[in-house]
Amino acid sequence: MSSTWGNHIKISIFGESHASAIGVVMDGVPAGTRIDEDKLYAFMKRRQAVDPAISTPRKEEDIPEFLCGVKDFVAEGTPICMMIKNNNVRSSDYSDVSHIARPGHADYTGSVRYDGFNDYRGGGHFSGRLTAPLVAAGGICKQILESKGIAVFSHIYSIKDIYDTPFDLATVGKAEHEKLSGKQLAVLDEEAGTKMRELIINTKQNGDSVGGVIECAITNLPAGIGSPMFDGLENKISSIVFGIPAVKGIEFGNGFAASKLFGSENNDEFYYDEKGNVRTKTNNHGGILGGISSAMPLVFRAAIKPTATIGTSQDSIDLDTHQNTQIIGKGRHDPCIVPRALACIEAAAAIAVLDEILNDK
Amino acid sequence: MSSTWGNHIKISIFGESHASAIGVVMDGVPAGTRIDEDKLYAFMKRRQAVDPAISTPRKEEDIPEFLCGVKDFVAEGTPICMMIKNNNVRSSDYSDVSHIARPGHADYTGSVRYDGFNDYRGGGHFSGRLTAPLVAAGGICKQILESKGIAVFSHIYSIKDIYDTPFDLATVGKAEHEKLSGKQLAVLDEEAGTKMRELIINTKQNGDSVGGVIECAITNLPAGIGSPMFDGLENKISSIVFGIPAVKGIEFGNGFAASKLFGSENNDEFYYDEKGNVRTKTNNHGGILGGISSAMPLVFRAAIKPTATIGTSQDSIDLDTHQNTQIIGKGRHDPCIVPRALACIEAAAAIAVLDEILNDK
Amino acid sequence: MSSTWGNHIKISIFGESHASAIGVVMDGVPAGTRIDEDKLYAFMKRRQAVDPAISTPRKEEDIPEFLCGVKDFVAEGTPICMMIKNNNVRSSDYSDVSHIARPGHADYTGSVRYDGFNDYRGGGHFSGRLTAPLVAAGGICKQILESKGIAVFSHIYSIKDIYDTPFDLATVGKAEHEKLSGKQLAVLDEEAGTKMRELIINTKQNGDSVGGVIECAITNLPAGIGSPMFDGLENKISSIVFGIPAVKGIEFGNGFAASKLFGSENNDEFYYDEKGNVRTKTNNHGGILGGISSAMPLVFRAAIKPTATIGTSQDSIDLDTHQNTQIIGKGRHDPCIVPRALACIEAAAAIAVLDEILNDK
Amino acid sequence: MSSTWGNHIKISIFGESHASAIGVVMDGVPAGTRIDEDKLYAFMKRRQAVDPAISTPRKEEDIPEFLCGVKDFVAEGTPICMMIKNNNVRSSDYSDVSHIARPGHADYTGSVRYDGFNDYRGGGHFSGRLTAPLVAAGGICKQILESKGIAVFSHIYSIKDIYDTPFDLATVGKAEHEKLSGKQLAVLDEEAGTKMRELIINTKQNGDSVGGVIECAITNLPAGIGSPMFDGLENKISSIVFGIPAVKGIEFGNGFAASKLFGSENNDEFYYDEKGNVRTKTNNHGGILGGISSAMPLVFRAAIKPTATIGTSQDSIDLDTHQNTQIIGKGRHDPCIVPRALACIEAAAAIAVLDEILNDK
Repeated sequence: MSSTWGNHIKISIFGESHASAIGVVMDGVPAGTRIDEDKLYAFMKRRQAVDPAISTPRKEEDIPEFLCGVKDFVAEGTPICMMIKNNNVRSSDYSDVSHIARPGHADYTGSVRYDGFNDYRGGGHFSGRLTAPLVAAGGICKQILESKGIAVFSHIYSIKDIYDTPFDLATVGKAEHEKLSGKQLAVLDEEAGTKMRELIINTKQNGDSVGGVIECAITNLPAGIGSPMFDGLENKISSIVFGIPAVKGIEFGNGFAASKLFGSENNDEFYYDEKGNVRTKTNNHGGILGGISSAMPLVFRAAIKPTATIGTSQDSIDLDTHQNTQIIGKGRHDPCIVPRALACIEAAAAIAVLDEILNDK
Repeated sequence: MSSTWGNHIKISIFGESHASAIGVVMDGVPAGTRIDEDKLYAFMKRRQAVDPAISTPRKEEDIPEFLCGVKDFVAEGTPICMMIKNNNVRSSDYSDVSHIARPGHADYTGSVRYDGFNDYRGGGHFSGRLTAPLVAAGGICKQILESKGIAVFSHIYSIKDIYDTPFDLATVGKAEHEKLSGKQLAVLDEEAGTKMRELIINTKQNGDSVGGVIECAITNLPAGIGSPMFDGLENKISSIVFGIPAVKGIEFGNGFAASKLFGSENNDEFYYDEKGNVRTKTNNHGGILGGISSAMPLVFRAAIKPTATIGTSQDSIDLDTHQNTQIIGKGRHDPCIVPRALACIEAAAAIAVLDEILNDK
Repeated sequence: MSSTWGNHIKISIFGESHASAIGVVMDGVPAGTRIDEDKLYAFMKRRQAVDPAISTPRKEEDIPEFLCGVKDFVAEGTPICMMIKNNNVRSSDYSDVSHIARPGHADYTGSVRYDGFNDYRGGGHFSGRLTAPLVAAGGICKQILESKGIAVFSHIYSIKDIYDTPFDLATVGKAEHEKLSGKQLAVLDEEAGTKMRELIINTKQNGDSVGGVIECAITNLPAGIGSPMFDGLENKISSIVFGIPAVKGIEFGNGFAASKLFGSENNDEFYYDEKGNVRTKTNNHGGILGGISSAMPLVFRAAIKPTATIGTSQDSIDLDTHQNTQIIGKGRHDPCIVPRALACIEAAAAIAVLDEILNDK
Repeated sequence: MSSTWGNHIKISIFGESHASAIGVVMDGVPAGTRIDEDKLYAFMKRRQAVDPAISTPRKEEDIPEFLCGVKDFVAEGTPICMMIKNNNVRSSDYSDVSHIARPGHADYTGSVRYDGFNDYRGGGHFSGRLTAPLVAAGGICKQILESKGIAVFSHIYSIKDIYDTPFDLATVGKAEHEKLSGKQLAVLDEEAGTKMRELIINTKQNGDSVGGVIECAITNLPAGIGSPMFDGLENKISSIVFGIPAVKGIEFGNGFAASKLFGSENNDEFYYDEKGNVRTKTNNHGGILGGISSAMPLVFRAAIKPTATIGTSQDSIDLDTHQNTQIIGKGRHDPCIVPRALACIEAAAAIAVLDEILNDK
């Protein structure tokens, strides 16, 4: 336990990569919330394998079926269950390696945790596929935030050592959001994007994989959202973002770079702007002070490790025979999940922020 | 809300910097747990201002009074309340600046969150002083972990751009733990420590402050602790570590550096050692796969921003007059809280890990 | 919110009477738990309409489909989702009365709570049909308890003013359990059962309904399960039992009758039996002292109000026109839900008790 | 675990009867809440031993000390800690019987739960004294409800077989509230009160104790408060009311009596009153339908068992020697705790209802 999260938007995620279905129960979506079906599916498509050159050939429609809680795409207030059938399952990819723990995967730790009873196929409940219902739930939350004027968007900050133009922490907003909308590879700097794509294609050809960093912004969030100590925005966002497989680090605002500054450099000076709104000249705090929003852009970055499954031989262990052995990844996998993980990060952020907003309403 | 955390070790932290007391209620400490009083106080001293050259002159005894739940330093099983009286309070330091939001502090966001009713003096409930009860609770958890053979320890990874020798992720253990024990400045490389101390002293003389990074290891943790998705070790640890003021980032194992590697470099190959134990050759995963412990050292790093209060003039706002103004920090503050924050990070990690262990028992 | 319950066995119930499906996500079922399929379906049948003379003609197969979390009827440890399709739906029964609040139902309160967006058909999420997934989840918990030697069973204590032989609080156990097993009308006294059945049939013919009381026993529960104050067995059991529509009261052991006794009469004297086990001579405390099990039979009673839907005309209100009006129940309803509610009560009790056992393990 | 309760008003109760202090941490009291000190202490006095003829001679001032979270009796929004010192402790009363389990108390079950490490003196954490912080927290919630026009009040429904005039479920309100205010023995029928007092005095003289039933009303609660299934008003209220020692049953509205009625008798017909408000002609549902308030008076009754400690000899067991033995209650105890329990019941109800209101705000 547990795949359940939240206080006001409560989500319970279920399923395994090769079970008959995956899905999510969402409790707490305000009655009367209108869900834009097309927008939701478009958002879900962003975590799917769209660019065959840089993604897995596994194709899932991933259209969630609303079992309940919604009528004519309006939330009834009672729990919503979205189910996604697993149609395109090739368990055979895994059958012969089932007893060999894949490096970088949860096969070994999961088998200890569950005494070997867990479904190992495709990673089972640990599969990245479980982010589909997360994205479905987050897509609804994102729409609710949008209706309040709050935008959640992200870009590829880096793939390996290729960097996009970073968000300007103090000014990021509509301009960047619009520029990134609808892009297959969400970067501000097209040239960097081209290099990233080339790197991913090359990496794939080498049977290898590569990681990156995602930068996410939540803009137009009013001040005063969040709580001190353990229910702060940083706590809440990180507690759900680490539910996305492959995330190994998170930082807010200036993050780790703040550790390299003097206080006189890192502090963000306050001022009243011409409209009488409180603002800071810089935004090293990333929109969060004391766990609570400051109305400056909330910006965080998440580190995504390279896809664990690779096409080259690796040393590993056979959990059945207790012998050292080797493994070569088969299955259908992405050389780089960063482009697909953007939607996951946005979804997680949207759920966390909405949960805090509903707490403070 | 909320300053309450946990499922099996439930802590409720209360108090403000200048209230009559601060403290913590701990629910879930197993009955019969023997608390080593001296060890607990020694641990709490580590978060206090011990080296006057690099710390605040504010001196608090910080000896928690056990109001209940403990008899002759043995836990009764029912809730423990530890209270720390605030004796050394100088509210006058804050009275004249009460209406001016200190840059980098939660004065502004807190006043929005609580409609101006919160206690601003010394940061109130947002004060770093609130980590004293956290450390008291964590100190007990640390002792429980020790009784299970699990060690929690940390060192200063960096102050600004001065770096200690980093932990070797795959082998960190007893040797490092012993080397760090009892040190006023917890570093492995004495030379780096000397430089750090000099930097802090210089910074103080300039009326400035400086940040750093703390690296924390939990060793000898058995495999199989933690849960998938939202109750993984990364989720739990980060959700409590961000409760420590000034933390702006966290990363596990290789963390952000993993984003710069190929999968073939970042994956940790499994093998059975001569005793038949499962190990990995490298430990880029930092002891956690799929949210669950692998029995390799659990290592994470937390970024600590420079102390927000500095002795130089900064632009700010007057929340009463709604005018732009200036502020110069008075109060008694540390030029660098990193040395004191080690105990906080260890405490938070110990609580999180024990909570997960008790979940999986 | 919220249809989510529990700490160690976490259940999230979803669905509406006339949605495409209802179901439950269970998180926390121990890995390796073997589920006896036949037993589970037999248990679920007990809450269905089996005796057409005294039940609703609505027939649902109510065979839950395991979407995930289970392989060959062995729990994998990860979340289990059981889905029950709604096949036999006749919304037309409700279409013409949709805007008229049915007395005794949640139509009015639900419409206020959800601003009119909730699904009113058949009671929507408030329908007794939502107890089907509760019974499915409870059926699994019951089997886990059985594997620990703990039995959960119940009988009809009364229908209106016809009483079965009550459980002897101090001795209830295997004999009663066996006697009740497999009975269509779970009573110890056959004669009382015959009278109850007659009363229900007569009531049905009058277009009326009738209530009753269910008495439930959990036997062989070891001492020491539960916690003081808010996580006691009484708190936990009542917090889930009131989730069953129509329950309006609950009492433990001697319950309300204890209020009519002197302490010298109500106190249960302790003694060591010949085997050295602690027992009490009487069991007015119903197996719970201070929220914690005493190893005496845990016995509680739940009051079930008469079915709200009746075939006679009642005054009511039209929520659309805001006029006073009349309503006559159509739909397909039970003249008495007590016989079907036994399985619900047992399911709720099993979930609550297992949750506490897993807490204290 | 756990003495922690709540989602929006989170309370953590700590302490033991003979520890140095008891108290409560409250998280979630809205910033700016003005606490009427005199009213709070007056409310707390109601659970104290005021009428020496019918109460324990143990006298505690029970003035809670606000350690934090409140300034000039205005809530700051951050956690409030109220501490009550235990001054009047006579542990000697318990020293010689410490190893003998008192019938009707949690001595035995607590010692199993906590492996004998719990503080047995005066019942330790299981003591009725722990209701003092509950009443302090509830007193604040009651004042918040009052500021919204919602009243919480109660009367002695019965002592043994002596009954006060019951509340008229449909009309109970201001008249009853005023009549009960300030009474030492809260009854509507003075004659019944006189008989109750005589019975208690006689019972005391016989070294015995007696139980009763408390009826509590929450009036002027708007419709739409509460949630279906497990977060309904009945679930929430019962989950906290059973935290009061000695409560063995709870019923809402018509409660157990509903089980003896036909649906045509028990259903409450709706109508629009002259002002256009929805009301029901009768109020057998006690103001709750589907877990949600109907705006009719919320009425429930709680059964209080007779005080477990009595002055006559009872058989029991010696937990040290494992021998059967006898015990005679010493200590200072009430022959009937019902009069003092009224404040506890109101406090618990106020906390539960406010928690739900804050959820639905």
